[in-house]
Amino acid sequence: MSVSEPVERLMKLFSRFPGVGDKTARRFALFLLQQPSDFSSELSSTISLMRDRTFCCSICGNLTTEDPCSICSDPFRDRKTLCVMENVEDMLSMEQSGAYSGLYFILGGRVSPMDGQDIEPERLARLKEYSGKGNFLELIIATNPSVEGDLTFFAVLDAVRDTGIKTTRLAFGLPLGGTIGYADRVTLHASIESRVEVRVQDNS
Amino acid sequence: MSVSEPVERLMKLFSRFPGVGDKTARRFALFLLQQPSDFSSELSSTISLMRDRTFCCSICGNLTTEDPCSICSDPFRDRKTLCVMENVEDMLSMEQSGAYSGLYFILGGRVSPMDGQDIEPERLARLKEYSGKGNFLELIIATNPSVEGDLTFFAVLDAVRDTGIKTTRLAFGLPLGGTIGYADRVTLHASIESRVEVRVQDNS
Repeated sequence: MSVSEPVERLMKLFSRFPGVGDKTARRFALFLLQQPSDFSSELSSTISLMRDRTFCCSICGNLTTEDPCSICSDPFRDRKTLCVMENVEDMLSMEQSGAYSGLYFILGGRVSPMDGQDIEPERLARLKEYSGKGNFLELIIATNPSVEGDLTFFAVLDAVRDTGIKTTRLAFGLPLGGTIGYADRVTLHASIESRVEVRVQDNS
Repeated sequence: MSVSEPVERLMKLFSRFPGVGDKTARRFALFLLQQPSDFSSELSSTISLMRDRTFCCSICGNLTTEDPCSICSDPFRDRKTLCVMENVEDMLSMEQSGAYSGLYFILGGRVSPMDGQDIEPERLARLKEYSGKGNFLELIIATNPSVEGDLTFFAVLDAVRDTGIKTTRLAFGLPLGGTIGYADRVTLHASIESRVEVRVQDNS
């Protein structure tokens, strides 16, 4: 050990973060030491606070400090649409895009036989109950464009089939800003299969 | 705000870490929530502990919880060689390489007129005093291969000139595992200028 023991220990902890190697963990620890003292104390207290106060919303499964969460209790959101997502991270991406203003349901898992993962049956039962009870006109199953996403999609579809609510899935195709030359084969397949008709306006 | 307030706050704090953007900060916060509770509490307490207990070694400037630090007080290290480095991060890289077993002196700064940075004059005076007092046979000035590294090198050289101790600098040249085809011009220049004579053994 060539540096102070708490610094070494912090580097070890940081190196367990996703995508963080030994060098980045070291840089994080040294960065913290260079910050004013209140940055470290705020970081340390926020981590404790988050751990102690955060739980899952009893309605949608979002992370929250109050039940129901700010989205479920927001009177200005569209209460006729429910978007089913794998996890909170996906939900936050969707929220930040600003593309959606309805309610959410977080599965908290996905179907992935390769990793031995599955959605908890109680969670699917809860979704069935929730979607049947609400006044939803549309269910958007927003799973990833991958094999696991497809399997998860079908598991969810199976659970909500009896509710008779219109069910949709996110569109797959060329990512905006991408180029056809660099698109992979599967994406090109999806963009051909889901091609959209162009209406030519008659200006005469 | 679409997720619990402490989670949002932690994301903001993580996004101030070097090289961490909003998405990585979010992943870090959600990763922490998925870990067993003692990981968060250990992280939080280690950050506080590091902040409260870590200071700079009065001899070399390394981070430590005891004075002098573990390197300066290690009786098995080579006490005839002193390696002058810009910061603790560089020193840790050197330590981990295992290439060096002498003592260190951390400048805690570098000469960079573009960023308005300079080495504190007291630190250079301290180096002069330390190198003059010890029984050093060699001073290695281990600054970066960059313009700022060169300026820092000459500032240090100027400070230790009077001690009369043999002074060396790290070798610059092709990085091991690299290829000549991909090496930049400046590195190739350095590798030509510092070329090493090959002794041909006469086996006859």
